[in-house]
Amino acid sequence: MALIVQKYGGTSVGSVERIEKVAERVATLKEAGNDVVVVVSAMSGETNRLMELATSIMPQPNPRELDVVLSTGEQVTIGLLCMALIKRGCAAKSYTGSQVRFRTDSTHTKARIEHIEDERIRADLADGRVVVVAGFQGVDKDGNITTLGRGGSDTSAVALAAALKADECQILTDVDGVYTSDPRIVPKARRLDKITFEEMLEMASLGSKVLQIRSVEFAGKYNVPLRVLSSFEDGEGTLITYDEDTNVEQALISGIAAKRDEAQITLSGVPDSPGVAYQILGPVSDMNIEVDMIVQNVGADGLTDFTFTVGRSDLDKAMSCLQERIETCGNCEITSNDSIAKVSLVGVGMRSHAGIASKMFKTLSDEGINIQLISTSEIKISVVIDEKYVELANRALHDAFGLDQVPD
Amino acid sequence: MALIVQKYGGTSVGSVERIEKVAERVATLKEAGNDVVVVVSAMSGETNRLMELATSIMPQPNPRELDVVLSTGEQVTIGLLCMALIKRGCAAKSYTGSQVRFRTDSTHTKARIEHIEDERIRADLADGRVVVVAGFQGVDKDGNITTLGRGGSDTSAVALAAALKADECQILTDVDGVYTSDPRIVPKARRLDKITFEEMLEMASLGSKVLQIRSVEFAGKYNVPLRVLSSFEDGEGTLITYDEDTNVEQALISGIAAKRDEAQITLSGVPDSPGVAYQILGPVSDMNIEVDMIVQNVGADGLTDFTFTVGRSDLDKAMSCLQERIETCGNCEITSNDSIAKVSLVGVGMRSHAGIASKMFKTLSDEGINIQLISTSEIKISVVIDEKYVELANRALHDAFGLDQVPD
Repeated sequence: MALIVQKYGGTSVGSVERIEKVAERVATLKEAGNDVVVVVSAMSGETNRLMELATSIMPQPNPRELDVVLSTGEQVTIGLLCMALIKRGCAAKSYTGSQVRFRTDSTHTKARIEHIEDERIRADLADGRVVVVAGFQGVDKDGNITTLGRGGSDTSAVALAAALKADECQILTDVDGVYTSDPRIVPKARRLDKITFEEMLEMASLGSKVLQIRSVEFAGKYNVPLRVLSSFEDGEGTLITYDEDTNVEQALISGIAAKRDEAQITLSGVPDSPGVAYQILGPVSDMNIEVDMIVQNVGADGLTDFTFTVGRSDLDKAMSCLQERIETCGNCEITSNDSIAKVSLVGVGMRSHAGIASKMFKTLSDEGINIQLISTSEIKISVVIDEKYVELANRALHDAFGLDQVPD
Repeated sequence: MALIVQKYGGTSVGSVERIEKVAERVATLKEAGNDVVVVVSAMSGETNRLMELATSIMPQPNPRELDVVLSTGEQVTIGLLCMALIKRGCAAKSYTGSQVRFRTDSTHTKARIEHIEDERIRADLADGRVVVVAGFQGVDKDGNITTLGRGGSDTSAVALAAALKADECQILTDVDGVYTSDPRIVPKARRLDKITFEEMLEMASLGSKVLQIRSVEFAGKYNVPLRVLSSFEDGEGTLITYDEDTNVEQALISGIAAKRDEAQITLSGVPDSPGVAYQILGPVSDMNIEVDMIVQNVGADGLTDFTFTVGRSDLDKAMSCLQERIETCGNCEITSNDSIAKVSLVGVGMRSHAGIASKMFKTLSDEGINIQLISTSEIKISVVIDEKYVELANRALHDAFGLDQVPD
């Protein structure tokens, strides 16, 4: 007897057959005595189809009207899923973002959630209905349709779970949980039963595509227990919570994440003076280019090297932006490298343990892998290496930190 | 300087290219100084695609959820059309049925319009915007999405025109107006500049597919001048109004309509007693079979023949329903004929003129066409004939009543 919010992504509802399977699963959960709210995405391919229609008319579509068009994708899914539930004798009712008063600000195509009215949903649950809500979409104070941006359905589910004070928010996807590393790279990778919000945030932002970052932040902020499950297989999945085990025997490292879609830009011989970092990165961020790692070392002779990474697809834009403003950095030399990879160790355990970094560096050195950049946070160490070593580094670190072993 | 409501059907917005053409036309109307509200249907094929998705899950889809699914069709069109207008520098804003508060009752899939809030639209028009509204859909008092049934976009447009007291409601379609008869059958058929609501109603209900009947009723009730125009070509189209010309020289007959999709059922030797008509038709209408013409002649020997017509697709259902209840009609003989056609003369002029019927019967007789059934109303005479004569009858009557001549 619990209140569960389940979210099914586009692949899970990608065909009539899959929608039937989702209905089967939801009906079973309901029959077991739970209150169930389901959040769904558009059928896979649908959002792309709608986007193509829009861009074929207007290459940069008007944001308000784009939201009107895109939000139809989830609306179709909620109706179809309700039909599949009702056919099974499971009372169900659908809500669009507007109908459930999923209130957001007015930033079309990437709106922020402000408030969710829960009265209608609670009334339906009390009447024994499964409630099916369109993910990804909301409504602003003037009644305009808004969307939360790609992947926003995860955030919709978590926000609904928070508003309803649900016992758990389950994200059903095409993987059966969060792994210690990418199983396609590290065959020994192990599914984690549990991971903290902070760790998951680092994993997510480092390229583990299981969950959308905003949804993890949201779940952490409102302390919504989040579970990642396979929508195709049975299993416990991975639970993401605050329950930090204080046992010192816990694993130091929860997982290893790798990211290949970055490129690195280095400005050599930059004047080592106040404001130079801003002078370099200001114009870059003005062009809406997101910067990830930033490394600046102590300078000598009044000059220093300044390195940062950007998304690989933004490299050309960033380079020409810098070339144009070369005087900013005192005619320094600008070089770039787009065959890099970032490998990161993540774990709340590393807070209380020294030696993780040195073990990491030694492991990579033993394999002959040169480290180009290092960046650390409280629960993460990231290194940038030559892209060709990414699988090797991943496997070596997985072994070195014994991630294939279930911690005692 | 007028307030014009334009409605574009599915074919007119059936592709990105056609949506661009519609935008062109709307922008021109706006630039000429008019206030313009546009009502659009789903892109052609889209409603069928959505219906197939729904019925593949639930052969008789849940009506509330079906409306949720189907209403997305028009929602995509309004967004795309607004983009095409905005691209042309023509300010535009889209509204779904819910957003414009197109209030209906809760009869899902065939809701009736109750009230339309016009404040938002008026504010947008005052701001110089073209307003684009999703046809076919509304919202009930509880915020549930409803649809008006197939072809409901015409009705949406007329209702909006009535609410806004528009100067004209223009229905843009794939024909360039209302004709004296079907031009594919009668090459001499002539486009009418003007026709009355009543005549149009009879024409529409008799199979002239230019306009949906409900929209004509609505336009008549609220006296909304309605104009049928081609969305592909220029032209004045046909204006439908109350302006009845009292000139006695006016045309007696406005048009000829033919309908082929009916079948006739005859019960011979029915007891000529009170209540027998109800006993026969009661069970038929209980099965939701619509009955069109009903003819019963004076009986002899306490027995009579009872004939009625139903949609051809309902014939088998109606026949087996009657066979099961054969005792109702005193074991009379039941026969049916599904190769019939109904040909009708329509015209407000016939009210004040005798002799129309006899001229019609003589014309058919001269061509050797036997009349099987006759039914009349104030402004219409319908006859049922063998289907194979339908084109011949149509052309002969068109000639006999001089419909190819513009009236003086």
